[in-house]
Amino acid sequence: MPTIADIESFLSGAFTNFDTKIVAVGDGGATIRREIRAADLRPGGTVSGPTLMATADTALYVALFGEIGIVPMAVTTNMNINFLRKPSGSAAIVAICKLLKVGRSLAVGEVSLYSEGNDDPVAHVVGSYSIPPDARK
Amino acid sequence: MPTIADIESFLSGAFTNFDTKIVAVGDGGATIRREIRAADLRPGGTVSGPTLMATADTALYVALFGEIGIVPMAVTTNMNINFLRKPSGSAAIVAICKLLKVGRSLAVGEVSLYSEGNDDPVAHVVGSYSIPPDARK
Amino acid sequence: MPTIADIESFLSGAFTNFDTKIVAVGDGGATIRREIRAADLRPGGTVSGPTLMATADTALYVALFGEIGIVPMAVTTNMNINFLRKPSGSAAIVAICKLLKVGRSLAVGEVSLYSEGNDDPVAHVVGSYSIPPDARK
Amino acid sequence: MPTIADIESFLSGAFTNFDTKIVAVGDGGATIRREIRAADLRPGGTVSGPTLMATADTALYVALFGEIGIVPMAVTTNMNINFLRKPSGSAAIVAICKLLKVGRSLAVGEVSLYSEGNDDPVAHVVGSYSIPPDARK
Repeated sequence: MPTIADIESFLSGAFTNFDTKIVAVGDGGATIRREIRAADLRPGGTVSGPTLMATADTALYVALFGEIGIVPMAVTTNMNINFLRKPSGSAAIVAICKLLKVGRSLAVGEVSLYSEGNDDPVAHVVGSYSIPPDARK
Repeated sequence: MPTIADIESFLSGAFTNFDTKIVAVGDGGATIRREIRAADLRPGGTVSGPTLMATADTALYVALFGEIGIVPMAVTTNMNINFLRKPSGSAAIVAICKLLKVGRSLAVGEVSLYSEGNDDPVAHVVGSYSIPPDARK
Repeated sequence: MPTIADIESFLSGAFTNFDTKIVAVGDGGATIRREIRAADLRPGGTVSGPTLMATADTALYVALFGEIGIVPMAVTTNMNINFLRKPSGSAAIVAICKLLKVGRSLAVGEVSLYSEGNDDPVAHVVGSYSIPPDARK
Repeated sequence: MPTIADIESFLSGAFTNFDTKIVAVGDGGATIRREIRAADLRPGGTVSGPTLMATADTALYVALFGEIGIVPMAVTTNMNINFLRKPSGSAAIVAICKLLKVGRSLAVGEVSLYSEGNDDPVAHVVGSYSIPPDARK
């Protein structure tokens, strides 16, 4: 299975302005950390919804890679997000993903998102990834 | 109710790098158009999921403003997205939002997202916005 | 493709106490009508959430049958419901389903639910059905 | 806060044919157990989707009562379910709910559903309940 360095290297090459660090991956999950920049904020001085959604999507992608290897063409099919609390505009976002199922063609996971240093989640996501045929050797 | 120019002016001031045009707003809905840049793509050369989610979120925000005025502190509470087809990486994304309910404290709407020039939706979103007390005069 | 009578016959055999009528099916959608009984109510005298979810699920199943034939082993993979207004406890529920995509292995549709005789939807559903391999001849 | 007996008594009076037992409630969550009857099955001999959705909805309702007391008019506003594995048609369904947020007017929780005796969840739900004003003394 790929290392943290392998996955970070892939993501940095695949996405422009990628600035997320992988804290842990494996055992059916992943933890990542994203620095918050001015472009990530919304009125009220908090982190924007799309920033949280993007971070959760990355956490699912990374957790899946930890189970089946780096499969660039895995694609999100469904994502559901509940916004729970106002995130701090001056703290990084930490996303903890736990996979609920990794099937032959579909994986489902949940992600809890936190403002770093605070134990109450700011958002909760459930998402599904479609795994392309032939993705696994 | 605010004009297209009013809402675009607000959004340009509130978000960094905002490059979405409002095509129409009012009558319980909105249509917006977002140019796709290199930073919006993902592996496979298609538009990234977070870009589609962000565009849908903006369409909901704009449609709501068309009903209750510009209320910056309206916040998304839930969003559910289904990815339906691979969007073109070289076409703008057009989002058509129709509000399903505008209550006292909660609004719900659906958004169909298209690659400009193609009639089959690339994604479908349902989202809820919480309207702060005192938002309406 | 199956007729309304074919599908109603299948559903009556497959589900206990099935009492839903198919009003229309085909052209990428379906309309069904469910009588409301005492067992379908909840505190407040309105139709219970699970009754609305079950009706939407049936509408999706029927609409899919109209596209690919009666495929009993098609199964729901994801369903998202927003409750919009208090349904009348004394009116039937009418569900109008429109399919957004019918792919090789996954179909996605949306359903608007109404208290019969009222134009404002009481709930809105988006759901996905997994189509088993070999389902189509 | 209400006891298990208080909540079961309320639910038995409020819903027809209610046959769910509360295993535990409090500490921001609830565990309930529902016997599966013939009417709860679907083609393939597994538990129907609407049965799982109804059980999850009850688990959320019970968990909320454990936090704010028995508030009959609390109503579901959004529910999202992912079906993960085929439930056994001959085992009870156990639902474990954990509340993610209990705000002034909105509560959000997640529910994992199991076929009794099996550690892999058959479905996962996230739902929101609207809490009526004046619900709390």
